[in-house]
Amino acid sequence: MAIRLSSDQADFEPRFSALLAGKREVSEDVDLIVRDILDDVRARGDAAVVDYTNRFDRVSVTGFEQLTVRQDEIDAAIGQVPAETLDALRFARDRIHAHHARQMPKDDRYTDPIGVELGSRWTAIEAVGLYVPGGLASYPSSVLMNAVPALVAGVERIAMVVPSPDGVLNPLVLAAAKVAGITEIYRIGGAQAIAALAYGTQSLAPVSKIVGPGNAFVAAAKRRVFGTVGIDMIAGPSEILVVADAENDPDWLAADLLAQAEHDPVAQSILITDDVGLARAVEEAVDRQLRTLPRGEVAGASWRDFGAVILVASLEEALPLVNRIAPEHLELAVADPEALLAGVRNAGAVFLGRYTPEAIGDYVGGSNHVLPTARSARFSSGLSVLDFVKRTSILKCSAETLRALGPAAIALGEAEGLGGHARSVAIRLNL
Amino acid sequence: MAIRLSSDQADFEPRFSALLAGKREVSEDVDLIVRDILDDVRARGDAAVVDYTNRFDRVSVTGFEQLTVRQDEIDAAIGQVPAETLDALRFARDRIHAHHARQMPKDDRYTDPIGVELGSRWTAIEAVGLYVPGGLASYPSSVLMNAVPALVAGVERIAMVVPSPDGVLNPLVLAAAKVAGITEIYRIGGAQAIAALAYGTQSLAPVSKIVGPGNAFVAAAKRRVFGTVGIDMIAGPSEILVVADAENDPDWLAADLLAQAEHDPVAQSILITDDVGLARAVEEAVDRQLRTLPRGEVAGASWRDFGAVILVASLEEALPLVNRIAPEHLELAVADPEALLAGVRNAGAVFLGRYTPEAIGDYVGGSNHVLPTARSARFSSGLSVLDFVKRTSILKCSAETLRALGPAAIALGEAEGLGGHARSVAIRLNL
Repeated sequence: MAIRLSSDQADFEPRFSALLAGKREVSEDVDLIVRDILDDVRARGDAAVVDYTNRFDRVSVTGFEQLTVRQDEIDAAIGQVPAETLDALRFARDRIHAHHARQMPKDDRYTDPIGVELGSRWTAIEAVGLYVPGGLASYPSSVLMNAVPALVAGVERIAMVVPSPDGVLNPLVLAAAKVAGITEIYRIGGAQAIAALAYGTQSLAPVSKIVGPGNAFVAAAKRRVFGTVGIDMIAGPSEILVVADAENDPDWLAADLLAQAEHDPVAQSILITDDVGLARAVEEAVDRQLRTLPRGEVAGASWRDFGAVILVASLEEALPLVNRIAPEHLELAVADPEALLAGVRNAGAVFLGRYTPEAIGDYVGGSNHVLPTARSARFSSGLSVLDFVKRTSILKCSAETLRALGPAAIALGEAEGLGGHARSVAIRLNL
Repeated sequence: MAIRLSSDQADFEPRFSALLAGKREVSEDVDLIVRDILDDVRARGDAAVVDYTNRFDRVSVTGFEQLTVRQDEIDAAIGQVPAETLDALRFARDRIHAHHARQMPKDDRYTDPIGVELGSRWTAIEAVGLYVPGGLASYPSSVLMNAVPALVAGVERIAMVVPSPDGVLNPLVLAAAKVAGITEIYRIGGAQAIAALAYGTQSLAPVSKIVGPGNAFVAAAKRRVFGTVGIDMIAGPSEILVVADAENDPDWLAADLLAQAEHDPVAQSILITDDVGLARAVEEAVDRQLRTLPRGEVAGASWRDFGAVILVASLEEALPLVNRIAPEHLELAVADPEALLAGVRNAGAVFLGRYTPEAIGDYVGGSNHVLPTARSARFSSGLSVLDFVKRTSILKCSAETLRALGPAAIALGEAEGLGGHARSVAIRLNL
């Protein structure tokens, strides 16, 4: 049973604040272990990666070449995947590609009123590492969501790593890699894979940025190599916030809440509504659907421990709560979702109306499903083409425009006690 | 004396690689100290900030209210600043504003061929913390470079922190804050200031993102609070790479190399040229200019320990070296800089031609001087308006378009073992 809050309760504010502040992740302290693994891979390269892979993934490889996934293995994996699934992967890939192609930023060169030439030029990152988890959270859709924006950006090399615990590799993940066009794949994971990507080894050339989700070891390793390479966000457990008016089918909303909850016992599903009847009907529908959900145990634990139903006097009253929660996923299952959207400031992705279940965005909507969790939509965005390009500033003065800008630069250089800065301008102006 | 390399040396590649791999920063291990400070400020708030400020900044304040910079103090600071400097700050602000206004990303709403509505909507981060170092590296230009893009983005609240070691606050920094329009300023610094901004205290409301440079304690604290808030890059020592042909005044180039070197004994200045005569002449000019440079001791140490002069057979041969160095600042002091620019892939900012000394970009060019250091231009960009906005994805299906997308989503949900995902789509389609 999820918690129930109502905005007319006297203690609503402290209870809502507690909901916001609630920690859902157990933060394992793996940082020192990770540090040692990173140092070791940096020092010994291939051999260290082989050692850790044998130990942590319970396999017995004797050389790094056995950790490279061969083309015939990829082809064999494709053979194991039903045609319908392959078609769905290709459909998803094409829709993701079409949406992300619109995100490519444009170069800008211009001459300002003084005559100074300025500009911003975008170029793709040359090499990117893509981490794909092994085991249960090994999702082919995530391969597409990470790889396609990189390819749209123009990244030439994508090195994918995916662990094979006990030697098992999910064929769907290899199929998704094939559909995306990834050809460089290693069956390695954990901090040792992050180290290999960041520092390079004898057999694996280093990349410039690492993206993709992972467990506590992967997250700690990404945090540590940040600076040597770029990283994407450190993703937390998934979450959804559904804002609903009375005119909803409670079963539809219950299905949406449970679709999030089934990810993880620490996932979070929250319903905000202005109708107490709907609130109770959704709670009942959740209980009913849990009985037949394949991952009912996981979803039930998430709903019980972290689910919440919040009653508000009006939908407008929901908006400040939405913006404080800053949800990863926000469904606006209301009559006029556009009106409500105008007041939404902090959300990773918004799903408008009654016919846009969040799962559409997970797979085939076209927008990215790698989104900011744990309130980080207050300051960050979902994965996009922008994560795979970088901008170079361009500045060009002539003798004349330097004469126009120079005196102010000299004044500021001198004010800051940086005489060399001032001199580098003055010397060109005979000042 | 800087090191000399020549691309025709047999051992050029290992020597160049060593130059790239060279660590310039002493990485102080302050992480555990920082962790304790963060925890303490989180637990005790104002009182902890007061305690650490008294201890580390050698002051004696009794309450947090004394750490707030009052309007009359800001006005008094302005009174100490020469009119010429204030004019230069305003000139710089206006130019930075004009350039950054072009960076504001545009919203995108569209309907795809199937009829699905998609979109990307940009909104400003609500509250940003701006860290300004105290002491020698307390630069008013950095206040403008960090604050103006935030204001252009539409950030409503900027909370600036700047330590006052021994009670001393640089009036220029307060003047720059005033010129930028910043009104919320605290005289605090170090990890305690980062903690106060990230977690909030009784007197200081938390922000959503923290930007600005700082010492090892500040960098470690930013790394730790990353996730709770957003952070900008972790900046390393500054660097310049000058690519020059024979037709240069050696004194101009020497001045540019020293303008970078004077920042810090671990700053780095590198010259690449195809003309040995110019190389030797620049080396001589550096030695000559060092004698009269106010910060000659700092610049001399940087040039001696980290400077480099690299001789290449042709300017085209310089390009792969440029891209491997991925310099923060790149000057192309050549006859046809645009031709060379076309081959530049990794650089924070490029300064074209003989009349664009890098110092112009530090102050009044208009582009940002907060740029990626330590080869991180391979994967990241200078500070921009994009650092102060975030994107929300928008997706909207109708009953009809859900019918078009639904089957593929259901197939992928089932393939991933996420029956709840599949159900949330199927239930709306009566499947």
